[in-house]
Amino acid sequence: MDVVIETARRIRALEIQGATNVAIAAVNALSEQIQLSDEVDRDSILSKIEEAKEILFASRETEPFMRNAIRYVEWRLRTGEWRDKEELRELVHGVSEGFLEDFRAATDALVKVGTRRINSDTVVLTHCHSSAVSKVFVEAKRKGVDFRVICTETRPKYQGRITAGEMLEAGIDTTMIVDSAMRNFLKEADLVLVGADAITSEGNVINKIGTSQLALAADEARVPLYVVSTLLKFDPQTIHGEYEVIEERSPDEIWPEAPEGLKIRNPAFDVTRREYIHGIVCEEGVISPHSILEAVRRRYPWIIESLGA
Amino acid sequence: MDVVIETARRIRALEIQGATNVAIAAVNALSEQIQLSDEVDRDSILSKIEEAKEILFASRETEPFMRNAIRYVEWRLRTGEWRDKEELRELVHGVSEGFLEDFRAATDALVKVGTRRINSDTVVLTHCHSSAVSKVFVEAKRKGVDFRVICTETRPKYQGRITAGEMLEAGIDTTMIVDSAMRNFLKEADLVLVGADAITSEGNVINKIGTSQLALAADEARVPLYVVSTLLKFDPQTIHGEYEVIEERSPDEIWPEAPEGLKIRNPAFDVTRREYIHGIVCEEGVISPHSILEAVRRRYPWIIESLGA
Amino acid sequence: MDVVIETARRIRALEIQGATNVAIAAVNALSEQIQLSDEVDRDSILSKIEEAKEILFASRETEPFMRNAIRYVEWRLRTGEWRDKEELRELVHGVSEGFLEDFRAATDALVKVGTRRINSDTVVLTHCHSSAVSKVFVEAKRKGVDFRVICTETRPKYQGRITAGEMLEAGIDTTMIVDSAMRNFLKEADLVLVGADAITSEGNVINKIGTSQLALAADEARVPLYVVSTLLKFDPQTIHGEYEVIEERSPDEIWPEAPEGLKIRNPAFDVTRREYIHGIVCEEGVISPHSILEAVRRRYPWIIESLGA
Amino acid sequence: MDVVIETARRIRALEIQGATNVAIAAVNALSEQIQLSDEVDRDSILSKIEEAKEILFASRETEPFMRNAIRYVEWRLRTGEWRDKEELRELVHGVSEGFLEDFRAATDALVKVGTRRINSDTVVLTHCHSSAVSKVFVEAKRKGVDFRVICTETRPKYQGRITAGEMLEAGIDTTMIVDSAMRNFLKEADLVLVGADAITSEGNVINKIGTSQLALAADEARVPLYVVSTLLKFDPQTIHGEYEVIEERSPDEIWPEAPEGLKIRNPAFDVTRREYIHGIVCEEGVISPHSILEAVRRRYPWIIESLGA
Amino acid sequence: MDVVIETARRIRALEIQGATNVAIAAVNALSEQIQLSDEVDRDSILSKIEEAKEILFASRETEPFMRNAIRYVEWRLRTGEWRDKEELRELVHGVSEGFLEDFRAATDALVKVGTRRINSDTVVLTHCHSSAVSKVFVEAKRKGVDFRVICTETRPKYQGRITAGEMLEAGIDTTMIVDSAMRNFLKEADLVLVGADAITSEGNVINKIGTSQLALAADEARVPLYVVSTLLKFDPQTIHGEYEVIEERSPDEIWPEAPEGLKIRNPAFDVTRREYIHGIVCEEGVISPHSILEAVRRRYPWIIESLGA
Amino acid sequence: MDVVIETARRIRALEIQGATNVAIAAVNALSEQIQLSDEVDRDSILSKIEEAKEILFASRETEPFMRNAIRYVEWRLRTGEWRDKEELRELVHGVSEGFLEDFRAATDALVKVGTRRINSDTVVLTHCHSSAVSKVFVEAKRKGVDFRVICTETRPKYQGRITAGEMLEAGIDTTMIVDSAMRNFLKEADLVLVGADAITSEGNVINKIGTSQLALAADEARVPLYVVSTLLKFDPQTIHGEYEVIEERSPDEIWPEAPEGLKIRNPAFDVTRREYIHGIVCEEGVISPHSILEAVRRRYPWIIESLGA
Repeated sequence: MDVVIETARRIRALEIQGATNVAIAAVNALSEQIQLSDEVDRDSILSKIEEAKEILFASRETEPFMRNAIRYVEWRLRTGEWRDKEELRELVHGVSEGFLEDFRAATDALVKVGTRRINSDTVVLTHCHSSAVSKVFVEAKRKGVDFRVICTETRPKYQGRITAGEMLEAGIDTTMIVDSAMRNFLKEADLVLVGADAITSEGNVINKIGTSQLALAADEARVPLYVVSTLLKFDPQTIHGEYEVIEERSPDEIWPEAPEGLKIRNPAFDVTRREYIHGIVCEEGVISPHSILEAVRRRYPWIIESLGA
Repeated sequence: MDVVIETARRIRALEIQGATNVAIAAVNALSEQIQLSDEVDRDSILSKIEEAKEILFASRETEPFMRNAIRYVEWRLRTGEWRDKEELRELVHGVSEGFLEDFRAATDALVKVGTRRINSDTVVLTHCHSSAVSKVFVEAKRKGVDFRVICTETRPKYQGRITAGEMLEAGIDTTMIVDSAMRNFLKEADLVLVGADAITSEGNVINKIGTSQLALAADEARVPLYVVSTLLKFDPQTIHGEYEVIEERSPDEIWPEAPEGLKIRNPAFDVTRREYIHGIVCEEGVISPHSILEAVRRRYPWIIESLGA
Repeated sequence: MDVVIETARRIRALEIQGATNVAIAAVNALSEQIQLSDEVDRDSILSKIEEAKEILFASRETEPFMRNAIRYVEWRLRTGEWRDKEELRELVHGVSEGFLEDFRAATDALVKVGTRRINSDTVVLTHCHSSAVSKVFVEAKRKGVDFRVICTETRPKYQGRITAGEMLEAGIDTTMIVDSAMRNFLKEADLVLVGADAITSEGNVINKIGTSQLALAADEARVPLYVVSTLLKFDPQTIHGEYEVIEERSPDEIWPEAPEGLKIRNPAFDVTRREYIHGIVCEEGVISPHSILEAVRRRYPWIIESLGA
Repeated sequence: MDVVIETARRIRALEIQGATNVAIAAVNALSEQIQLSDEVDRDSILSKIEEAKEILFASRETEPFMRNAIRYVEWRLRTGEWRDKEELRELVHGVSEGFLEDFRAATDALVKVGTRRINSDTVVLTHCHSSAVSKVFVEAKRKGVDFRVICTETRPKYQGRITAGEMLEAGIDTTMIVDSAMRNFLKEADLVLVGADAITSEGNVINKIGTSQLALAADEARVPLYVVSTLLKFDPQTIHGEYEVIEERSPDEIWPEAPEGLKIRNPAFDVTRREYIHGIVCEEGVISPHSILEAVRRRYPWIIESLGA
Repeated sequence: MDVVIETARRIRALEIQGATNVAIAAVNALSEQIQLSDEVDRDSILSKIEEAKEILFASRETEPFMRNAIRYVEWRLRTGEWRDKEELRELVHGVSEGFLEDFRAATDALVKVGTRRINSDTVVLTHCHSSAVSKVFVEAKRKGVDFRVICTETRPKYQGRITAGEMLEAGIDTTMIVDSAMRNFLKEADLVLVGADAITSEGNVINKIGTSQLALAADEARVPLYVVSTLLKFDPQTIHGEYEVIEERSPDEIWPEAPEGLKIRNPAFDVTRREYIHGIVCEEGVISPHSILEAVRRRYPWIIESLGA
Repeated sequence: MDVVIETARRIRALEIQGATNVAIAAVNALSEQIQLSDEVDRDSILSKIEEAKEILFASRETEPFMRNAIRYVEWRLRTGEWRDKEELRELVHGVSEGFLEDFRAATDALVKVGTRRINSDTVVLTHCHSSAVSKVFVEAKRKGVDFRVICTETRPKYQGRITAGEMLEAGIDTTMIVDSAMRNFLKEADLVLVGADAITSEGNVINKIGTSQLALAADEARVPLYVVSTLLKFDPQTIHGEYEVIEERSPDEIWPEAPEGLKIRNPAFDVTRREYIHGIVCEEGVISPHSILEAVRRRYPWIIESLGA
């Protein structure tokens, strides 16, 4: 389990960051670990996977994409067949490659869909940094659409600066505002696009703190809000009634030299209710968040099945 | 006009800051200027005041409190009488002293009222730094009420740190959050208290950017929001249909070393609609914002009268 | 103080009930007590009134009408004059008679106004028992208007049965429902009329538990809700920031033979926010709750003045 | 009573149209009738006015402006004095002239206020034709403001075409839409301005059918709606609980050659609730509709007083 | 048909009560009736079932669970095969046993899911008595979760007392309130759980009168409301446009000795719209009510199919 | 391509009107064109269809029903087989006949469902003319239900007069109003039924301008709104992120002799958001608009498949 344990350590220490990077690293570690092993026996392999899964799951509290990646590998091996070491290796290799290819195809598909929502003269407001949202913007610009982006700075970690940097590099007209000016600038916006860290069985979306506030204000301002995300961010444990755990981060991110006695609360995410979400822009197209569970069941049945009852 | 011009310069250069300090400085400058003058003639004095008024008004775009202070002095002199230099000096001195005393009494009254809204175990959320709100908190604590304060950091100038400092000094249990976490922490709050930079004839309140977002979220969360402010912040020009001008501040406050090409918008205030405000805690007690104009007409008729038609 | 003490005892013991009866008893006790006294001296009389006031105020937590009645007597004596015992007696007698007459005139006026809101075929929903609302119904029927009343039973004390009884006696077509069916029957209603136990400076109304729920549902159903009440129910202490105290009554009213260990909560009133109230039908006509404070200041200035700063 | 009767006939027959024209004609008729009479005796004059008032009031169901005009004349004569025929004539003449001058001054004042709400690039949506709103537009254009107007056609009488004609004549950029496209074009609008036929004591506004729908959509779209109207449109009978009567006009206006058996309903007005109205632009400036009653009491006390209890 | 007729009679007479008991009794009666019969012929059996179905359906107006139970038996026999009396008996026995087992498994699954929604310190408000909700509470307590329940008394039949009794027996901290205090106590609640009598194809839920009022208030208070119910409560007739019939019960339940002439309305249920329901906690996990039809189609296709077009 | 080109011309010139007529004409033209051709070769036929499809699609901007009809024919041929000219003809004929029969069956099914939503005494409000809605009304009347219809006149083309004519012919009690009176008459309505021009993947409905305004007002008034439409109006391109194009029609429809310089905007449709739609009454029964995509996928999988990725 060395490879898996080391990868889990690096994930926990934030040496590997970003939902996509974490998922890829976990799949690769799992794949490598199996290939390193001398065992071929079905039960041994499956119990090894089970063990690796527990270690990797424990490395981060809320990371449905990584968990789904591992669930995929497990499900494929559980339903797959091999006769010897060689075949197992090939299978494992094929499965992990397959997952990454499917993910890339899913991303391409949703970027294409999202791009169609942006016309010339559209003003789009976004919050934090989402690689899916950024890809939609860059692709729209590449296609020659002349639009504007307004991005929040996104305290405490200023991820909005990453977004702004990517936009400027792509030559997109970009304006930055403080987070508390969101409601004010919705008057100028035609559209809100945000990413997702997790999607629940009720159709709610977990994303960077401030998203639910933006969603509330967008609803008030009648500006449609779309979540741009692969369905692989769906968290199947919410079907079973589990609440999404909201990570609480270090106070130092907010005020490093805070006076003694001051309490600082720093939750990283919040929950945006489905009624504030016009649509989820995903590999299935633009869908209503209310029917997310049906879409996942059809597209990725193994996410549901792998979980058991 | 030297004194007045110098004071206007210092106000413009932000050497004098805070609505109250600015108002006091303006009244003192105006008072000193008149006393320095050799003239006693009614018309000369009034035209001198008119001149000083224009200079001081021009020093800051939106500063109704300072403007009302000057309107008060003008109105008192316009309706007052004097026979010689000595009597003029006494009148002017009395008027400016009187204004400051009235303001102090008004503040004492509203702090007393605001304090009664806070019970033990109450959790109060506030945004930015308002000296009136801070006084309410400190006085409540002094009276032995055991409550909690949640304050935002208030980007870009971190005025929330000033609030937090004052609260800690008074021994109040205080928690700081980023601005975009407001909606999240309203779940824990029983009450929202904010200050005001200006109040309009419709009953709307101009305050630090983010206040209108907080008000929207407080309304959604059914947490009552009160504005703590003297009625001297009422802007009579709004009766005449004028919009409140929203000051736009330097982009450097948000991102000093922003990449070239990035636009940064930095409005200092926003407008909170009267329907989100449960009450205005002022020298007249707790009143509905919808009837603000009637309260001002009764309490400070000169604010209305001094403006003409 | 015997008379006053005994009256306070009877009020506390619920031997005297109903806001109007309590107010009348308190005024009469105060009036009698002063007349019984041998003193004529201004200061002695006023200090006696102060003492009586404290005793009577303490007899019930929230009873603004009774308190206003006593404030009226106090204010009239504080501003009145007398030379001897006889004149004092006459003054006191005149004042208490005057109060009751004014109250009757106020009631007549508001009943007349309320009646005009009811047309033939109107279906009016009401909650609990309010003598003002009942008078409006009876007067409308007397004038020949052919309308229908829907009344809730009003747990736990079934005051709706009193309302129903009065309606049937007046020959009004009356339907009773359980409290939880309010929202359902708002589909059939054109109008909601309720009474008030107290009105605050913000324009909110304290009334029988369930009123705020009815108001919420009426708002959702677009059925206008009017509060029928004399302005004498205004509580001036709310100007000063005081919260209205909500009386908590005996669990036995809800379940006399409840199993051991069961907690029972029985608040008698709740608060209905001004935005759910289309108008207050009072002696000044139909007024917006947002301007209640102005109306009280004009009609009953002594309510405000008697309170001091 | 010949003059009064003939004027009432012409009003009823729509030979005299528009709230202002009707009010002027009524005041003139009343004034002429008194001057024609040989009587000087106070009681005779007042009873003549009473008679004339009834005739004129009966000429149109809802016409508060005309009614207030007559109330003004009556009130001035009731409180005025004269010694002979000549003095009576002068008084009557002065009163009617005074009313018209006051009205003109009020209009000038509110137009000035309304104009300040329009900036360059503002897009204003309006419904029907209101002479006050048109005056605001024309004056703003005259001052050099470069704005756009969107007006509805306003079925069934196409009053929007009158508005459009006036706008084009003033050189204003004007767009016409069908009534049912209101909500759609609110996306482009910054402001809604409408007139008023009557204002109630609760702060609601009666105006051309469709206004309440526009107000609902404007509220949803967060576009502020202002009512531009003199306070002389206030209907004091609503204080007393009276409902505003909504005139029902001929089906022929909607479909002249409708098939037999088809019912056609054609109410001329609807009621817009105060919570949808950001402000009333009137001779007192921009005021909250919630405090309309206080404003009328202060500005035109005779409107209230003339009505009795 | 003796057994079926007798069971239908007992259901109608409320000798058998509760959706589950009624469903079990109906299945058993149907099963016994078929086994008692001498016939084996397919057409005879199916026409016998058709006859029994009509009798049982007619025994209660709205009872989708019982109807679905019978639809299940019918569907299994319609698609099943048998060669002789013995095989038919076995089939019938297996089918009815199977249905009950499936139902028990479904209940176990949803209780497990619902339990995960309750954490320590959670305050849950519930209305009426639902065996599914009670099971969730008891199971959460058994697992060691330390939460509180607030239950309404639920007039007119006081089913809240049954809930309270079960809670106390399980050692759960329980508070009872009157129905009209729901909105008030939502301030203290973190969660609302209610049962269901029927679920419609639009995703609406029919439940005890008062539920829709609670849902409205929970929505206002931002307290999530979940419906705990098996999908077997889905009423397939609503797909076909049928309205759910709302049972009207005896006035005596509300006021046994009501005065003559008083009308009493006593509907047993009301309809809660899907937008007020955060999720349905069912055997499929936590799902959005908007996708209920898809969930039923997948899980219990025979509910849809058995109905025909 | 003569037949196809001529049909496309007639569609463009509005010689063929109404979604159903257009769809039938397009299918017939396509079918005839293929039968006229001498080719039998699979690739030739499919490329011919591709060509015809482009011509027909271009004849009208937004016409999902016609497009789906053509998609159906294409999909059937793409998946079908034939050996010679004769078999191809039969297949083509069968496919186009089959489509029309399926459409008729779908219409019958949804009319049957819609009819069940109307009871005696129901007042139904409708906007514009929808043949599906009219069929529901006529069928309900034929079944003996005694209900009332309120219809708008529907400017600028007065399609409401067509609806009114059909209603009167069927003997239905019908009332016509102007479009801007919708909100007013919702007070009398129990139900709103409208048609659809297109349905999007998010569950929104494109229909005659004014529908979204009606939906907003119906939501405010708590009157349920149902869209009556076959799922064949679903536009699969919206899955891929495309916006529905809103046709802008001639200004002459609004004001033929408009003064020069007046801009006139005349969009034919608007978008009604899914949250305002209680249900879609379609061939699948009453379904939630949030799950429309799932219903289309199940019922008409070829709509999705024919589109590719």
